[in-house]
Amino acid sequence: MTMTSLDDLFVHTLRDVLYAERRILKALPKMEKRASAEALRKAFADHRAETEEQIARLEQVFDMLDKPARGAKCDAILGLIEEAEGLMDDVEDAATMDAALASVAQAVEHYEIARYGTLVVWAKALGHAEAAALLAHSLDEEYAADRALSKIAEGGLNRKAA
Amino acid sequence: MTMTSLDDLFVHTLRDVLYAERRILKALPKMEKRASAEALRKAFADHRAETEEQIARLEQVFDMLDKPARGAKCDAILGLIEEAEGLMDDVEDAATMDAALASVAQAVEHYEIARYGTLVVWAKALGHAEAAALLAHSLDEEYAADRALSKIAEGGLNRKAA
Repeated sequence: MTMTSLDDLFVHTLRDVLYAERRILKALPKMEKRASAEALRKAFADHRAETEEQIARLEQVFDMLDKPARGAKCDAILGLIEEAEGLMDDVEDAATMDAALASVAQAVEHYEIARYGTLVVWAKALGHAEAAALLAHSLDEEYAADRALSKIAEGGLNRKAA
Repeated sequence: MTMTSLDDLFVHTLRDVLYAERRILKALPKMEKRASAEALRKAFADHRAETEEQIARLEQVFDMLDKPARGAKCDAILGLIEEAEGLMDDVEDAATMDAALASVAQAVEHYEIARYGTLVVWAKALGHAEAAALLAHSLDEEYAADRALSKIAEGGLNRKAA
């Protein structure tokens, strides 16, 4: 798709993030299943519910722009999920698996932090104040999810694995 | 590679990040070449020099661990770079290209923030204080690079593209 304006790029990036969120929604139950620590399983379950709401928010933004809520293949999330699957194949000890899962989930959170951060400033630059507010809500959730994973990892997972 | 301890996972992740930094070092000159805004070109040039130092720091950490400084294929960075290349192919307007390049560079910074953040806490958990300090230095640089890109984007790129 040729893009010649920030409007085009904004819509393209919304589609990229919609695709990413849908892939994350599929990956989270697998990660939850492989996790052993109760706090980590709960974090993945909580984030699954949040991801559903984030998808609904993106759909609202597409509605506001009068565009179909269609995802566009996001190579970055495919790479991140491939990395997560590689770890799930290669790690054989439960405590090490938990440390690996938390770390790869944080890499995914950071991808989303970067993309929602960008979408918020572009929405503002384009005068889409309502869309900016919805996207900022998801951005705050991603920051909180990342902090929660840090707390779980530093609060016991890593010590247990070490 | 089968991993059965946090030590294994730490070394694997160091290899993942080494591979990623080397790929970033190759991608940055292409991104610099496609950028129009002087501040953005300078940010890419500065980050190239920083990336070289970050690679040297990783090599020092491998030395401390008495392991060869060998990279391991990092699917996440390959996906992120594929995304950057897709944008460089599809965006046709110079101001929009700058906004796209800054945003995708921030996604790369966030990947590195996530990975260095994890490596620092694992290094500490494993008792590698000196390695933790080196990795924390790179982590601080990635945060600063991300903030610098935000400032450039919000300070003019996005307004120009909008």
